[in-house]
Amino acid sequence: MAELGEKTLHSQVIYRGKILNLRVDRVLLPNGTEGLREVVEHAGAVAVVALTEEGEVVMVRQYRYAVGRHLLEIPAGKLEEGEDPLQCAKRELAEETGYTARRWEPLLSFYSTPGFSSEKMHLFLARGLERGGQAPDEDEFLQVVKVPLAEALGMLWRGEICDAKSAAGLLAASWLLAREGRQEDHPPLP
Amino acid sequence: MAELGEKTLHSQVIYRGKILNLRVDRVLLPNGTEGLREVVEHAGAVAVVALTEEGEVVMVRQYRYAVGRHLLEIPAGKLEEGEDPLQCAKRELAEETGYTARRWEPLLSFYSTPGFSSEKMHLFLARGLERGGQAPDEDEFLQVVKVPLAEALGMLWRGEICDAKSAAGLLAASWLLAREGRQEDHPPLP
Repeated sequence: MAELGEKTLHSQVIYRGKILNLRVDRVLLPNGTEGLREVVEHAGAVAVVALTEEGEVVMVRQYRYAVGRHLLEIPAGKLEEGEDPLQCAKRELAEETGYTARRWEPLLSFYSTPGFSSEKMHLFLARGLERGGQAPDEDEFLQVVKVPLAEALGMLWRGEICDAKSAAGLLAASWLLAREGRQEDHPPLP
Repeated sequence: MAELGEKTLHSQVIYRGKILNLRVDRVLLPNGTEGLREVVEHAGAVAVVALTEEGEVVMVRQYRYAVGRHLLEIPAGKLEEGEDPLQCAKRELAEETGYTARRWEPLLSFYSTPGFSSEKMHLFLARGLERGGQAPDEDEFLQVVKVPLAEALGMLWRGEICDAKSAAGLLAASWLLAREGRQEDHPPLP
């Protein structure tokens, strides 16, 4: 079947910024009429479910200006130009939490909000953690918090952990652990 | 402990649009220096894991201009001004797929990308489906596809389903079904 796409008729850059650009395009829709598409361009990002030997998830608590509150999230960060997602994940985990990890596995990759943004998020599971120093970016103020995986899943169901990458990451990681027969890591259900 | 927030020093609206606004703010950081925050304002959204009696997930395939490709996603849509998330979920499921549902349960609510957007996503599980007519928005061109839940989870692990809300929704729904003892709905693992 021929797939119905959307053809760009006109593209206007509204803003070029530090972590995002905004573009507003006029497009030709499949039915021959015109539509408007607002696109937030983003370089992509990574996030890490980092598990200690004790089954704790290393998380970061920080103020999120865009939502006006503090959130407890898995460590994450933006891809630099041309950066490999796994290298970025290793860098962000070290910068935000001070941990390095001996075992890395890809979990999932997904678009964060394909309705208006190009951002793709790459999720990793990191195990075999070793503690180093913490060196966050100069405009990041982070508190590192270790939460047992089962408790983190409970916090997710109760809405105390409430961002998309942490939700998908914690759920995906717990499935992966279940497959490995680590029944003690099964999350509590809602 | 007193929590470290960020105080707005100056706020500039760069763009007011159809589905989003862009604001760029100068803020006072916890260490007394100034920083820049780019904020995509969004009214919030809903998404629905709609399960048929046969254990299939009702999904929609559509072209996503922001990422330049077709995606297979769970039905979703933007909250209208003052709209209740559950009412919005019922409306979007009906508009995009033609289905109505007798049983609705909240799954998870989360911020899609708290690093740069205010968007909050409300996920629901819908069961007891009934088929009606399909009436998508005039600039939406959707194909409705029913996928067995186990197969949808397999597509997620393989990256064939690749957006954040579908990832979190399918994983959360499968946990909920597991709790109900519907072992036949357990997803395949990677």
